[in-house]
Amino acid sequence: MKCLFNNLKYIKMKKSIVLFITLFTCYCLIGQTIELPAPQKTGGMPLMEALAKRATARDFDTTSLTMQQLSDLLWASFGVNRPDGRRTAPSANNKQEIEIYVLLKKGAYVYDAMNNKLILVLAEDLRSQAAAQRYAEAPVQLIYIADLSKRGDDSEEGKMRTANIDRGYISQNTYLYCTSAGLATGARGTVNRDALVPKLNLRPDQRILLAHSVGYPKP
Amino acid sequence: MKCLFNNLKYIKMKKSIVLFITLFTCYCLIGQTIELPAPQKTGGMPLMEALAKRATARDFDTTSLTMQQLSDLLWASFGVNRPDGRRTAPSANNKQEIEIYVLLKKGAYVYDAMNNKLILVLAEDLRSQAAAQRYAEAPVQLIYIADLSKRGDDSEEGKMRTANIDRGYISQNTYLYCTSAGLATGARGTVNRDALVPKLNLRPDQRILLAHSVGYPKP
Repeated sequence: MKCLFNNLKYIKMKKSIVLFITLFTCYCLIGQTIELPAPQKTGGMPLMEALAKRATARDFDTTSLTMQQLSDLLWASFGVNRPDGRRTAPSANNKQEIEIYVLLKKGAYVYDAMNNKLILVLAEDLRSQAAAQRYAEAPVQLIYIADLSKRGDDSEEGKMRTANIDRGYISQNTYLYCTSAGLATGARGTVNRDALVPKLNLRPDQRILLAHSVGYPKP
Repeated sequence: MKCLFNNLKYIKMKKSIVLFITLFTCYCLIGQTIELPAPQKTGGMPLMEALAKRATARDFDTTSLTMQQLSDLLWASFGVNRPDGRRTAPSANNKQEIEIYVLLKKGAYVYDAMNNKLILVLAEDLRSQAAAQRYAEAPVQLIYIADLSKRGDDSEEGKMRTANIDRGYISQNTYLYCTSAGLATGARGTVNRDALVPKLNLRPDQRILLAHSVGYPKP
């Protein structure tokens, strides 16, 4: 009888451990992903006014963006705008080789445009490593990274040329969204690649093209 | 008396000839320049809606654009938006190396952004030489040309890399303006350079980067 009781206790404990492990795994998986709120695909500043006010900023306030602002920023920059997966910015032959990495205080994420999520890459604040001096005060650093493996059989030079063209389209969207939303932004090609490549665990064919600091303008 | 009369007739004729030459010169000078109407720097589609509707078109109606549409299109793409001469799209170190050539039925012009004018390059319809097949039906072909002499002492490879980045910014503005104005546009790098370089009288350091067909969407 005692043996049976012990067996039951053992089975219960085993079940509890399995349940705990399952819940902990779920928690970890949820913790690795930020589900963004649906982007607002209407409204914003009239286009000609946004173009009239577009400018490059170098100084930023440290105030954080809301998750809604982050979702809108990413969708405007290079979000999916058609059911077939095409985007707000064109890419040569629709290869969509540019990925946007998002550096926040709580970690570095990659933007999953199709599912409107941020997937955790590293739970570490890399913002100061992406941006030197005053740029680093911005609460968000976007890093545009070209995945050259998506550009087919072209030469490396050709792949990089195309990726550089495509980055301009996305970057202009970032500028115009920020103008429309009363935010400040500045793009620059000088990024600390030596620091970021290992931290973001980039493959040799993933190339850092550009960083965009995004935040409120410094008063 | 007869001699005096003849002298007066001679002077009158001389004056008429001078006046004719003056008027003809003025006519030619005016004929070489199109003064664009002031661009409309307010209004347009709300930005997020323009981004939601942005797409690449390949088929165009042959209907012409108005001069107001042409002025708005060019200003939105790469017009001057600040008193210091800065533009609606950024360029690396503000070198503004990209010039927009405008191919219309009546001739090829270059956009003078500072003075909001089109300056005649050649009074010939080059549109079919700029665009193959169905693209050629669009009433306007914009050709983006990089003047590498404006990019300083960088290597040729570096100058072209920067110019290609900068072209993406301008091209996205062209896309968004067309979306906002109910027009269609498509960018492409495959341009008939052999035909256009001599016709547009380009120097070796002026490089054709891109063509944008612009017009109403084909019904």
